[in-house]
Amino acid sequence: MDLVIGIDIGGTKTKVGLVNKDGHCLEKAFFRTKEHPELDEYLKKIVETIEVLKSKFPEELNILGCGIGAPNASSKYGTIVNASNLVWKGTVPILEKLNKLMPIPMRIMNDASAAALGEMLFGNAKGMKDFIAITLGTGFGAGIVANGKLVEGYDGFAGELGHIDMTIGDGRQTGLGVKGGLEAYVSATGLKRTILFMMSKYMDESRFRDIAYNDLHGEDITKAAAEGDTIALKAFDFTASILGMALANFTAFSQPEAFFLTGGLVNSGKWIFEPLQKYFEQNLLEVYKNKVKILRSGLAPKTTAICGAASLIWENYHLEH
Amino acid sequence: MDLVIGIDIGGTKTKVGLVNKDGHCLEKAFFRTKEHPELDEYLKKIVETIEVLKSKFPEELNILGCGIGAPNASSKYGTIVNASNLVWKGTVPILEKLNKLMPIPMRIMNDASAAALGEMLFGNAKGMKDFIAITLGTGFGAGIVANGKLVEGYDGFAGELGHIDMTIGDGRQTGLGVKGGLEAYVSATGLKRTILFMMSKYMDESRFRDIAYNDLHGEDITKAAAEGDTIALKAFDFTASILGMALANFTAFSQPEAFFLTGGLVNSGKWIFEPLQKYFEQNLLEVYKNKVKILRSGLAPKTTAICGAASLIWENYHLEH
Repeated sequence: MDLVIGIDIGGTKTKVGLVNKDGHCLEKAFFRTKEHPELDEYLKKIVETIEVLKSKFPEELNILGCGIGAPNASSKYGTIVNASNLVWKGTVPILEKLNKLMPIPMRIMNDASAAALGEMLFGNAKGMKDFIAITLGTGFGAGIVANGKLVEGYDGFAGELGHIDMTIGDGRQTGLGVKGGLEAYVSATGLKRTILFMMSKYMDESRFRDIAYNDLHGEDITKAAAEGDTIALKAFDFTASILGMALANFTAFSQPEAFFLTGGLVNSGKWIFEPLQKYFEQNLLEVYKNKVKILRSGLAPKTTAICGAASLIWENYHLEH
Repeated sequence: MDLVIGIDIGGTKTKVGLVNKDGHCLEKAFFRTKEHPELDEYLKKIVETIEVLKSKFPEELNILGCGIGAPNASSKYGTIVNASNLVWKGTVPILEKLNKLMPIPMRIMNDASAAALGEMLFGNAKGMKDFIAITLGTGFGAGIVANGKLVEGYDGFAGELGHIDMTIGDGRQTGLGVKGGLEAYVSATGLKRTILFMMSKYMDESRFRDIAYNDLHGEDITKAAAEGDTIALKAFDFTASILGMALANFTAFSQPEAFFLTGGLVNSGKWIFEPLQKYFEQNLLEVYKNKVKILRSGLAPKTTAICGAASLIWENYHLEH
């Protein structure tokens, strides 16, 4: 059986899976990224994990290659550079190092660009030529497709929209030190920061007054909203207002047919999508109104990122066959 | 001789020219757009102007086609839609109407996209695959090239970056009613508004305290800066700070190798370019620093827009031959 290894390197979890030609992840495993601060040891852990996954198949496997999605990855150089949400700092030559341990065809790309490619190959963007995939995890990522091709930029670093300054002036700081950066507001982390901000601004009773920042999780905020916690509701409304304006701004750039949202924040469902739709349409220029869809990914929720990463390799086979 | 008609429809002037295969505009003429508020009469004026230009050549001319650059133009539908800086409102089916008067191959495009194409064919972007052309005239336009192709968007309206909201909240209103829209700050009009703002904020003596808004011209502001007028200097610094942040934000989108600036504001030379370079680098993410150039157009200053428009037709011949 022909399979591709898909690896998603996230700030919180590393996800590894084996993906078939239809974009189905047949076997997968997760581990915590931060438990492996030493890069060589981390890469060994990845290889071990792959071996375990492969051993679950009784038949002979033909591994075509390995695709990797990671924040701040350069597709051109095979490196991860200054990723604010990862433990390794500076320029990490990850592709070269992993290739030594696993000599098979290998590609790395910004995780959100990989998500965009996955959406185009296996998901809801089939046949679309202009769309943007947004990943709302620990950080904020964007994969931009224009004229049917990923926008990679001169150096492979296009799509770092999480660090766009939305405020002129004195906004929240992102992990890269950008003041007013979008990611500081719109991401799982941004939502947690907004809970703190809303509790500082208002005196509403809230379950979050008894929970420390580091113990706060996105799912709890969704639950609280469903129970009518006004701090949670205000936090979602505020997050959606900034995301809505950002997506309206992005529309002015490449006029996508649709945005595809993935990542932890999407699991908050209507609490994020309903106000988002409202603020998005409010901020759109007349010429774009009612033309741009905000959609969820068409890939299986738990393995979206793995399939996106695997699509870096599958892409070549889809073109050939 | 093979020639292409290039037409640039601007908020202030309409420029018409005849352009050869090397991107040289051999004959040209301008007239004021606002003097022809009636569309049919305006189009007749264009056709007359072309006839006059053609009559200047003694030899037989082979007109290959006509390219048009205009604000808010849809390349897909051949229309101009809700252009804030033009007198005709709503959706203007300009290509269809002009084609009836002149039955030759015809294309229309956002003026800044046409400028980008011209830069790629005839100017300083030859061989570049990722760059952005910015036109700073009455308004603010952007033509984005990624992977060697113009980003036109789902509907042909990509690149409306002048209406990106830079402020969250209570910024200046653009002609399209966008609060905090970039064009309200960075354009010939934006610079004039900033002169008023600086005179409202500071009590500095300035020649502009004796000049009404409608009598204010970009060239005067440049002259005043050269003479040390502090209101003019503050206005340039402020304009450059917002443009610098905007270009840094755009870099995060498509990571261009270079920005090419054209239009009236560029004539202010060092007064805009020097502070712009400073603010741009200040705002760039680390990963982009010292990689992205801010350049002037390589096309002849007075006919940049005409050559850009003509490149919509010449593009096809360059590919073929």
